[in-house]
Amino acid sequence: MALSMNVTHNDGLARAGEITTDRGTIQTPVFMPVGTRGAVKTLDTGDLERLGPPIVLSNTYHLMDRPGSDLIEECGGLHKFMDWDGHLLTDSGGFQIFSLEPKVTEQGAVFRSVYDGDKLEMSPEQSVKVQEQLGADIAMVLDVCTALPAPRDKVLADMERTHRWAERSRQAHTRKDQNQFGIVQGGVDPELREMSAKAIVDIGFDGYAVGGLSVGESREDMVPALKAATTHLPIDKPRYFMGLGDPIGLIEAVHNGVDMFDCVLPTRLARHGTALSNEGRLNLKNRQFANDQRPIDPSFDHPLSSRYSRAYLRHLLVTNESTGGRILTLHNLAWLAELTNRMRQAIIDGTFDKLRDEVWATWHR
Amino acid sequence: MALSMNVTHNDGLARAGEITTDRGTIQTPVFMPVGTRGAVKTLDTGDLERLGPPIVLSNTYHLMDRPGSDLIEECGGLHKFMDWDGHLLTDSGGFQIFSLEPKVTEQGAVFRSVYDGDKLEMSPEQSVKVQEQLGADIAMVLDVCTALPAPRDKVLADMERTHRWAERSRQAHTRKDQNQFGIVQGGVDPELREMSAKAIVDIGFDGYAVGGLSVGESREDMVPALKAATTHLPIDKPRYFMGLGDPIGLIEAVHNGVDMFDCVLPTRLARHGTALSNEGRLNLKNRQFANDQRPIDPSFDHPLSSRYSRAYLRHLLVTNESTGGRILTLHNLAWLAELTNRMRQAIIDGTFDKLRDEVWATWHR
Repeated sequence: MALSMNVTHNDGLARAGEITTDRGTIQTPVFMPVGTRGAVKTLDTGDLERLGPPIVLSNTYHLMDRPGSDLIEECGGLHKFMDWDGHLLTDSGGFQIFSLEPKVTEQGAVFRSVYDGDKLEMSPEQSVKVQEQLGADIAMVLDVCTALPAPRDKVLADMERTHRWAERSRQAHTRKDQNQFGIVQGGVDPELREMSAKAIVDIGFDGYAVGGLSVGESREDMVPALKAATTHLPIDKPRYFMGLGDPIGLIEAVHNGVDMFDCVLPTRLARHGTALSNEGRLNLKNRQFANDQRPIDPSFDHPLSSRYSRAYLRHLLVTNESTGGRILTLHNLAWLAELTNRMRQAIIDGTFDKLRDEVWATWHR
Repeated sequence: MALSMNVTHNDGLARAGEITTDRGTIQTPVFMPVGTRGAVKTLDTGDLERLGPPIVLSNTYHLMDRPGSDLIEECGGLHKFMDWDGHLLTDSGGFQIFSLEPKVTEQGAVFRSVYDGDKLEMSPEQSVKVQEQLGADIAMVLDVCTALPAPRDKVLADMERTHRWAERSRQAHTRKDQNQFGIVQGGVDPELREMSAKAIVDIGFDGYAVGGLSVGESREDMVPALKAATTHLPIDKPRYFMGLGDPIGLIEAVHNGVDMFDCVLPTRLARHGTALSNEGRLNLKNRQFANDQRPIDPSFDHPLSSRYSRAYLRHLLVTNESTGGRILTLHNLAWLAELTNRMRQAIIDGTFDKLRDEVWATWHR
């Protein structure tokens, strides 16, 4: 059964809703933690269950190389492999592959493995097949990720190839219990973003992603491009902004009608000793926290992380005890889930603009 | 209140009992996981609570250097610092210091910090003071750890100094809510071990440890030395074999009347990909486990670890995902706790020799 999206509340363009699949319901807006190789770094599946994200993202590129999608299929798919009953989304592998400077033809991309240097190929059909083997609830089409800034004709050509690949991906998709999302490209050009949104919607997917943004462009460039895309996406399908995880980015995306996000930022920051908090980013390795007996964020209680003091965290972090990064990973994911919960509640209450001002006041530098 | 030891069952020299403190009861035999810097590597205190060891060991040397015992005292002591309500034992720091080739005089040891090369001193009185600041339930005296093999006169001289330091440590101890354990030395010489046990018991402590064994000597050398010590220890006080964590070592020590153990072995093995199991040690990085969908040890169910397949563990371990070491840490500690539980039950049932044969059959190579 394909997923259904029920938007229950609007506040401006911002929307609160529910995505329902065979597996259950996801309340939106939702942030998806990244479990690159079938595990969120420093956490196990028991931790995810205690933390409670309704959906976790995993990386097709990494899993197809190690341990391989054939092996995961033999083990009963990624859910069974991880022993995770929540939702899973797999990316197409495109983002990682395009960072490896592949040779790209109409057929697909040829690149070298980061693991052993082997020559590998990835086509739209291959990405669909691998993701069907992994068996996530949501699979992404392979798109052409244009490195920005780029000339308009390059962005246009990549976008048009993205549309042809999307068409091929839709044709190749066979697994009825898996939802497939299309991806809108078009760089920072609102006109191209509109064209791309219309073309991808014409093909028809279970949900729509905005790709190729939050890759270094300014927020002034990003927001109009995003808005041009979301304006032309159907209201009854989920909208996913790929690779976004900073609080201002999230609130701006929700402000423009986005429902889903993922990013390695909160977990990577955690492992490097940085906490997200209502005081902004805190580098807990700093000496000022050596004797600070307050919890990580005194304004945010969470059973998994707020029992530990900043002093304890700082000690673990400066002595390179992985427990420090683990506790901050739990904290940052819980904190970001709480931020999206607050967004959801603000949309329901019609006070989203107030929360948006608050987030800007805390996080704008 | 000083702890009390109630031996409830004997089977030969092996004993099952209960250690009772203000904090609660510890059933023996008991293995103590090592939380070097106030955390068991890859785990947080929530994990320890789910795992349930009644007592955890932490390292005075590491904590006095980072973050410092003054800071931990300001934070309310090590229990509060870690937010751990179970029992804690701190070593004296001696074992780490003696591995740094210190200059040792009658007063104490002078050595250089592993962290910054600073010249540091440690005396029996200083170790007592630092451990009183840390505030563990059980503190250890500073002893002279003789590197074996060593000539008899060297072992004798170090042992006698250990006795004088034990006397000074007992005098220096002021914290009535903290139990203090003496340490028997004497190398592998049963005669010296007997002398040392008698001398340390004469001083009078809340419990007794056997130190300086399991440091590379053969089992044929170790067991008579251990037996000579335990024979002369009072039956109504806990007996702790320091630094022991292999299954045969544990069963032999219990066979000779020991109640408590600690070792980094199960947690260190875990981080390197090795599982303890009823099939012996399993190196889960091996290719043979790539597609093995059985749990880590099919004969051992545990809610924290047996949900994961060997194939999943192997994947995490070969891709250096710390989640792999984390799951194996949970497994190895749970498995070793189960082994000590089985020892306890066998002593109660009068079937200890049978279990001992079993452990030897599995673990002897």
